[in-house]
Amino acid sequence: MTNKNHELLSRYKIQMEEMFRLECISSLLDWDHQVNLPVKGTQARGEQLELMSRLTHQRQTSKELQAIIKDLYEGLDELEHDDRINIQESKLQMDKSLKLPEDFIARRSRARSAAYAAWVEARKADDFSIAKEQLRANISIAREEAELLGYEETPYDALLDNFEPGSRLSIIKQPLFMLAEGIKQKLPAILAATEPAHPFGSTFDISKQRSLNEQISHDLGYDFRAGRMDIAPHPFMTTLGAHDKRITTRYDESDYLSSLLTAMHEVGHATYEQGLPPEHAGTPRGSAISLSIHESQSRLWENIVGRSRPFAEYLYNLLPDYFPEEAAKASPEHIWQRLNSVKPSLIRVEADEVTYSLHIVIRTILEEEIINHGLGVDDLPARWNELYKEYLDLEVPDDAHGILQDVHWYGVGLGYFPTYALGNLYSAIMMEKIRDSVQDLDQKIVRGEFQEILLWLRANVHQIGMSLRGPELAREISGNDLSEIPFLNYIAGKFDL
Amino acid sequence: MTNKNHELLSRYKIQMEEMFRLECISSLLDWDHQVNLPVKGTQARGEQLELMSRLTHQRQTSKELQAIIKDLYEGLDELEHDDRINIQESKLQMDKSLKLPEDFIARRSRARSAAYAAWVEARKADDFSIAKEQLRANISIAREEAELLGYEETPYDALLDNFEPGSRLSIIKQPLFMLAEGIKQKLPAILAATEPAHPFGSTFDISKQRSLNEQISHDLGYDFRAGRMDIAPHPFMTTLGAHDKRITTRYDESDYLSSLLTAMHEVGHATYEQGLPPEHAGTPRGSAISLSIHESQSRLWENIVGRSRPFAEYLYNLLPDYFPEEAAKASPEHIWQRLNSVKPSLIRVEADEVTYSLHIVIRTILEEEIINHGLGVDDLPARWNELYKEYLDLEVPDDAHGILQDVHWYGVGLGYFPTYALGNLYSAIMMEKIRDSVQDLDQKIVRGEFQEILLWLRANVHQIGMSLRGPELAREISGNDLSEIPFLNYIAGKFDL
Repeated sequence: MTNKNHELLSRYKIQMEEMFRLECISSLLDWDHQVNLPVKGTQARGEQLELMSRLTHQRQTSKELQAIIKDLYEGLDELEHDDRINIQESKLQMDKSLKLPEDFIARRSRARSAAYAAWVEARKADDFSIAKEQLRANISIAREEAELLGYEETPYDALLDNFEPGSRLSIIKQPLFMLAEGIKQKLPAILAATEPAHPFGSTFDISKQRSLNEQISHDLGYDFRAGRMDIAPHPFMTTLGAHDKRITTRYDESDYLSSLLTAMHEVGHATYEQGLPPEHAGTPRGSAISLSIHESQSRLWENIVGRSRPFAEYLYNLLPDYFPEEAAKASPEHIWQRLNSVKPSLIRVEADEVTYSLHIVIRTILEEEIINHGLGVDDLPARWNELYKEYLDLEVPDDAHGILQDVHWYGVGLGYFPTYALGNLYSAIMMEKIRDSVQDLDQKIVRGEFQEILLWLRANVHQIGMSLRGPELAREISGNDLSEIPFLNYIAGKFDL
Repeated sequence: MTNKNHELLSRYKIQMEEMFRLECISSLLDWDHQVNLPVKGTQARGEQLELMSRLTHQRQTSKELQAIIKDLYEGLDELEHDDRINIQESKLQMDKSLKLPEDFIARRSRARSAAYAAWVEARKADDFSIAKEQLRANISIAREEAELLGYEETPYDALLDNFEPGSRLSIIKQPLFMLAEGIKQKLPAILAATEPAHPFGSTFDISKQRSLNEQISHDLGYDFRAGRMDIAPHPFMTTLGAHDKRITTRYDESDYLSSLLTAMHEVGHATYEQGLPPEHAGTPRGSAISLSIHESQSRLWENIVGRSRPFAEYLYNLLPDYFPEEAAKASPEHIWQRLNSVKPSLIRVEADEVTYSLHIVIRTILEEEIINHGLGVDDLPARWNELYKEYLDLEVPDDAHGILQDVHWYGVGLGYFPTYALGNLYSAIMMEKIRDSVQDLDQKIVRGEFQEILLWLRANVHQIGMSLRGPELAREISGNDLSEIPFLNYIAGKFDL
């Protein structure tokens, strides 16, 4: 490496480290907001977050950093692997951000705030018309953003790339569509094979739930010396430092399994973050690939492991120490049934593992139609309801159970939804390979020996940071392009179809 | 007000608000460090704190802010009361900071880090010689600082002013000296009048201790909607926003009273902060006067209220709901005795309410001799031990029980110690007036009705922010200069002397 590159790289790293610190500080402000903040502290916390995000933005868009990245990118071939990954990815991010003028960013931010506020109102009143104009404005902003960012194939790709770098509709559409068809085809048999399970237990002391979740999280490989588990109304995982990846969960005294699955979901996100190479923290080489790969980790642990028969047996064996009365009445089979109730429903966040992806496919179809084919908000509810009839055979009774149920289009943007279903696909692709490489996997799960699963994920997913993009990772792991087949096979295997 | 002043003031406030936000963010980083941080997160947290303190320092020393303050100060007479307080105080702080060159700040910081590290080692080994050279360096830096800052009477005043703005040795020396003489004189009678009390209780469930402390803190007037109470190894109070003043405390299963008094001490600090005018948050007009006035609030609640006979009765009446077994064996008199054991001892932080100030007077004498009269580290331990013999009639057996017990001279600086004893004096001055103005005070304390005490403090101390300085506040409240007499009267009254 030339001396000049050496000096540029060291300046690049100092800047990236400082931005990472600022982001971690913002994350702490947010974590504390959701976990601890006294009610009267809300306004000041908002002002503190606003200040931090201004300071971070100043650095992200500094001319100095831009010049460093540009200079290093010109000599990309001379850089070593890790540095090349960093500069390549930073250059892409910088180019994207330079395409969005400050005025546009401000307008987008205002449009989203307005749409979010309108959505809150509309949802309360169960009346889409209250938020319609704000959604129309948001969609118009999203179309403008796609044009500003540019695309090779279709405008929607530009938005998808915000959440799923390197992906395009042409890569994900076919697998998602085949996934939906496969699920629709299997659903009648699954519904016939599963019976509604009796409730599991009646009351679960919350401090006992916490202790049991801590033990299970520890068994799964979550490192409590580099994290914590707290309570928040909306569970999440957050990064407060290279060795500080915290999770939150929530508890319902009448439903232990729901708190367990929530914890396992967040543990999945957190073990990914704990497995990223800490020496690259704050740079792309030390960052997660994308939302869908993140979601693959949470769903692998929550669904593929957490809802499996051997896991139900592992859990059953732990119960007597925590809930002796409930344990005496339970059986592994009963727990498994409770974890695997399947029933088409109208609300995405309450959907079971099988029908969940149908909700996502519906939203992806709508997003494509909105951005690429001009579907307007006036026609949106009818189209929404039509698709729920087609895919889930359900009538949507009102806006709250339909078009108003999710915040994303109002407060986050379009292009996010597909990542949830892609997470399912990636998780099944990974688990197929884990099953190939770990001997006696099911017996190990029964005994609470999850280390080999985690080690496989560490080596094949976590350690690589952003060295690969999502679609490349699928090929690297499976030898094939992103595919729905592993997931459909997994579902078929689970329900003996 | 002129338009120019109006515009300058608005810029002043924007800058002060931003600095306050940065300081609150640093305080959150620190709070979380002490309350929550996973062990592996320490290094990153240090780096985050370092970054925030750099960002704060840049703003504190910005040429723009200096120019604003200077311009406003020139037209001080035209400003309204609150603005005048702010600009006056900001000008003083700015002048002080401009007197210390960056190079000096860096040297002082390095000297303190080195002395702190040496102190930790020396204390572990119980060997002053390990830290002697670093303390010598620290003292030399302190003398240099006094010369850089300048003073009207003696060099020590410059250092005292860092912690106690507007105070001078000539103001505090006489009252502290008379305080020590008064205590020494009363001590034999107090020791004769109090007998060593039996232990109070044996084990106290910690979650019950927390609940009881929360109820008592609430009764005292601590607003939990603008604060929280958590656990930390070293209890403290911190400001995370104009309406977010948190306290931490610690628990010992075998000693409930110690956790209660710690909580009351921190509640005293926090009710002060909660009573500052929030519309002036971040400016001198909305800030606490000084360390000693802060300490007067914590000591008023912990000692004057918390160790009183009516409070012992109030506590006794609460006990059955929390510790029924201990309550059955206790009596108000027994609790009062436990709260008021008096015995000369070698360690400041373990001292009782009566002898505590003697420890402080010893340290103040030593600080004066070090800074004003050239007492050197070689002679310091002998002089320390001599003063413990003179004031407490105790032999110091080793360095750990003597010169090495406190971190202040090594890690914080000289000039801090007097504020603890001044806090005692101020608290007694205030309580004398509270007693005059609140009818049936003792019966109200028995019933847990503390509102009128708090309201008096709100009106006479909290609401004024930095409108007065410590010595002025004493005159405003009592009509007299700072005096030891109210405290000595209080002690005499308590022990029926």
